Amino acid sequence: MPQGKVLVAQGGGPTAVINESLVGVVTEARKFDSIERVYGALHGVSGIVNEDFLDLTQETDANLENVAKTPCSALGSTRVKPDLAYCQEIFKVLQAHEISTFLYIGGNDSSDTLKILAEEAVNANYALRCIHVPKTIDNDLMINDHTPGYPSAARFVASAFAGVNQDNRALPGAYIGVVMGRHAGFLTAASALARNFEDDGPHLIYLPETTFNADQFASDVKRVYDKYGRVVIAVSEGIHDESGQPIITTLAKEVERDDHGNVQLSGTGALADLLCDVVKAKTDISRVRGDTFGYLQRSFLGCVSDVDQREAREVGQRALQYAQTGDTDGSVTIHRVDKGGQYAAEYQLSPLDAVAGKTKVMDPSFIADSGHDVTDAFMDYLTPLVGSDMPVVARLEADPVAKILKK
Amino acid sequence: MPQGKVLVAQGGGPTAVINESLVGVVTEARKFDSIERVYGALHGVSGIVNEDFLDLTQETDANLENVAKTPCSALGSTRVKPDLAYCQEIFKVLQAHEISTFLYIGGNDSSDTLKILAEEAVNANYALRCIHVPKTIDNDLMINDHTPGYPSAARFVASAFAGVNQDNRALPGAYIGVVMGRHAGFLTAASALARNFEDDGPHLIYLPETTFNADQFASDVKRVYDKYGRVVIAVSEGIHDESGQPIITTLAKEVERDDHGNVQLSGTGALADLLCDVVKAKTDISRVRGDTFGYLQRSFLGCVSDVDQREAREVGQRALQYAQTGDTDGSVTIHRVDKGGQYAAEYQLSPLDAVAGKTKVMDPSFIADSGHDVTDAFMDYLTPLVGSDMPVVARLEADPVAKILKK
Repeated sequence: MPQGKVLVAQGGGPTAVINESLVGVVTEARKFDSIERVYGALHGVSGIVNEDFLDLTQETDANLENVAKTPCSALGSTRVKPDLAYCQEIFKVLQAHEISTFLYIGGNDSSDTLKILAEEAVNANYALRCIHVPKTIDNDLMINDHTPGYPSAARFVASAFAGVNQDNRALPGAYIGVVMGRHAGFLTAASALARNFEDDGPHLIYLPETTFNADQFASDVKRVYDKYGRVVIAVSEGIHDESGQPIITTLAKEVERDDHGNVQLSGTGALADLLCDVVKAKTDISRVRGDTFGYLQRSFLGCVSDVDQREAREVGQRALQYAQTGDTDGSVTIHRVDKGGQYAAEYQLSPLDAVAGKTKVMDPSFIADSGHDVTDAFMDYLTPLVGSDMPVVARLEADPVAKILKK
Repeated sequence: MPQGKVLVAQGGGPTAVINESLVGVVTEARKFDSIERVYGALHGVSGIVNEDFLDLTQETDANLENVAKTPCSALGSTRVKPDLAYCQEIFKVLQAHEISTFLYIGGNDSSDTLKILAEEAVNANYALRCIHVPKTIDNDLMINDHTPGYPSAARFVASAFAGVNQDNRALPGAYIGVVMGRHAGFLTAASALARNFEDDGPHLIYLPETTFNADQFASDVKRVYDKYGRVVIAVSEGIHDESGQPIITTLAKEVERDDHGNVQLSGTGALADLLCDVVKAKTDISRVRGDTFGYLQRSFLGCVSDVDQREAREVGQRALQYAQTGDTDGSVTIHRVDKGGQYAAEYQLSPLDAVAGKTKVMDPSFIADSGHDVTDAFMDYLTPLVGSDMPVVARLEADPVAKILKK
């Protein structure tokens, strides 16, 4: 069993429940006499190199429980992916602080970081136990049935579309909501959970797993609008044409690229506006509105799946246990089991390289043949994840009054 | 006491609690034997002209309670403002259906509609009791301390900024969130409620009550960024230059105008993107992100102030009572009273023309001298409105670990 100090850090995009996992690690560590201290690195691996550690051993249970309920990485996050030289810097710091266990809470980039680090630790003959704790609203980690953070973000997206669908019923027109997800459409697909009545939106759901064609899009929009007098559309920020070009680049002249050369999809309203322009140009719909849900999807205060909270806590606790009682590095993975028709989750430690740097996308069985909707199989998959007490949506049921003047 | 039928309708932009007022009208009417039927007009005054009525007398109390909890006008809404000819069409329909009382739930446009209708009813010698039921997320109705719909939207904006502030702490940079409010900054100002710690955002709040200057804005942003290493900014969609020109028009070449010739501010991400461009061009901040909160602010499922719910219900009930037991038209208004240091609301019937077509903006005492923040007086005003059980926001409190290599 590793002695000494445990180090925990958070990487990548925040989620509503990422601190549940952090607190799961810290509280579980308190059960092991062999663990001397739990350090938290600020801003992921960059905090290790900078020796920016908090001594989480000092945290009260009461404050930890409040932190667990607070959205977004309490330790701060990073997008840094270390190379060999960076890893050597990390080992120097870990050695100086006598750290034997590193738990990294993050997505596929963070698990890739951990894989690199674990390999370099072996090469450097540095004894380091590396456990990856899953997290991502994109729900795109291999092996996992789903990932902590996704159910709460899905609940946000479903709640948002349930609301804008009502808004669109009240003041009809075309409404486009753009949802996060560069390669995987899981979060956009969650918009389908907003539907309660046969004519509820979103009526069209465009995913990055399918090819997007602007003419076909305009024709779909027009068809729904002609049927219902209104249309609500969910669009993934990652939609692309048949050559793989993001639609935001094919529609816009100027696009911003991030440090990795990726086109900036979030933190800009451009895609929703461009798609509104398509609808205005190619249909006769007069009221066309678009919103880009942006960072609210992963951080909004008070929109959390209780299932997600419990599972995020548990993967943190499991990670600590695997580190203390196991003898391999790995990634904690979530697996679905059927307990007498009821949803339940089980946990395993899977090899790092089965998760690291890979991206899971939606299974074809989750995508309707039309290419712009989800299947019942997806709804069965999603429904138990978003948690209890989803607010009710109701309509007036009274009969129309017989017309007197215009009968 | 008016005999016969009561007609109720909803106008203008939806809110999260507008159906509480509708249900307040319908359930209160059940106490009066003199009321034969309660009709609901679909899509406001346009539903009257089209004779599109639902017989709400048929609704069960159980379904009405579910409708009350559902966001956005269950009867549908409209932006139509009737002229004389339109009013004559309305009277023909009301007469044919023997309707003596019209309750219109809406904002200053809807109260103006009601004022026109009430005046034309007198001219036409048509006996019609007209009562306006207040509603608007903009909080811009005269006489009222605040308006139903605003507290829930304020809670959404505060919850959104509390989340993005955490996100911005985790992955630092500049973040701009654009909030609804063409003339009144109340909703944007509610972002201040997101702050829990001294360095929490929003650090800068730009309101339509003050003049916006892009150079000053960039300089403010840079100053905060240099101090905290990050900056969160709340901006009203209605910010304008000293000549009154909306900033979205001064920054953009192309803007869309609505049917009234107003520049389209909502349903487009343009302003956030343009302001991000300003920050990128005029500062050295590399990570700049902007979101436009859009329609989620007034429709999001499950983000409601319980105070707002109760008050929205009550103004509907009061409106019905004023109509049945009073002898004048008017607008139900909300007034704040201090009950032993505790917030409480009282209700009055105020003259229609005191509310109709007028816009209340933020009192100068609510705006900080800097012009880009709110005062403690505003926080005292807002805090009791947003309701109970705001989610907790906490931080890790542990001490930093002493550096060994870089001491």
